[in-house]
Amino acid sequence: MNTELTKSGLTRASIIDAGIAMAQETGLESLTIGTVADRVGLSKSGVFSRISSREELQIAVLNEYARRMTERALLPALRAPRGLPRLRAIWNGWLDWVRDEKIGSSCLFISGAVEYDDRPGPVRDAVFNGLAEWRRQLARTVRQSIDEGHLRQDADPEQIAFELSSIILGVHNDIRLFRDARAFSRARVAFDRLLADVALSS
Amino acid sequence: MNTELTKSGLTRASIIDAGIAMAQETGLESLTIGTVADRVGLSKSGVFSRISSREELQIAVLNEYARRMTERALLPALRAPRGLPRLRAIWNGWLDWVRDEKIGSSCLFISGAVEYDDRPGPVRDAVFNGLAEWRRQLARTVRQSIDEGHLRQDADPEQIAFELSSIILGVHNDIRLFRDARAFSRARVAFDRLLADVALSS
Repeated sequence: MNTELTKSGLTRASIIDAGIAMAQETGLESLTIGTVADRVGLSKSGVFSRISSREELQIAVLNEYARRMTERALLPALRAPRGLPRLRAIWNGWLDWVRDEKIGSSCLFISGAVEYDDRPGPVRDAVFNGLAEWRRQLARTVRQSIDEGHLRQDADPEQIAFELSSIILGVHNDIRLFRDARAFSRARVAFDRLLADVALSS
Repeated sequence: MNTELTKSGLTRASIIDAGIAMAQETGLESLTIGTVADRVGLSKSGVFSRISSREELQIAVLNEYARRMTERALLPALRAPRGLPRLRAIWNGWLDWVRDEKIGSSCLFISGAVEYDDRPGPVRDAVFNGLAEWRRQLARTVRQSIDEGHLRQDADPEQIAFELSSIILGVHNDIRLFRDARAFSRARVAFDRLLADVALSS
């Protein structure tokens, strides 16, 4: 095992880790080589030797955040049976993910969307791609629920994915701005209402 | 008429105007006496003589934005008959308001919520109060719709206000990040689905 390489890997991981925490508190836009170096207790050149630009840092932070969210919120849900059980599992995993975030910690994709929607470039692209991939995953699972006969044939997967994503945005707003934990039960009521509307009335 | 006062009033209005445009492009957090002075072509001291702090500027910008939105999106809707017609009018006015924003112009309350949800102080309070007031207005109109016999007695006004607000957040995201105008028709489908679910099945 190459000890130098391992040490360098560990340091890069701790830089990204500090970057995620900072971005969750004050936004992706607050991330610079200098601010993250301060936080992690390295010199700026120590960070630069591992991450060559501010943009690379921001994107590495987004990618690692997405990886964790996928691992914790999505992958376990994908083991549920195809169709409606899996859609429910993804929904529950997503709400749990939002709930488990520390108070004061924002979803980097939701806050990143607002920060970067007007700023073309690789950071905006990374935010866009991350949110678009979740949307596709939702729509795909809805489509499978239709194929499995759990939802009506005329249910619109993109419409339902839009509505579910909207509810998550509402939860994020109510938890973070209003500090109102009733958002979780409201999200469940909204999910059940939507699903009941498109369920096969068998 | 006091010409000096009028001129000073006009200048203050043009400062606020420039502040709204800037905040819609790059966020409330980007507003400083210096950046807005540059934009409006005044010296910093020229701005300072009318607005005494950065915070006063940010709050004046939010208040003026809220005033315009109320005037354009809410007040005309309040002339619709009490109950469901008024709820529909508010909904349409709200979607029209979002649609009429210039491309690249964000709703200051939606972006402000993400920028300030973790930063206690008067700006966060102003964002909080503005969004809470809209939520109360929606819930009140739903309650009136129940009283008028347009919606079921067991409909939950706060739940419905949460769901409607969530859909608007979804529209804002899809329009601004995804540049996907189908968000408007999806919002209407979501509204109709929700209302059908709580309508009196007469």
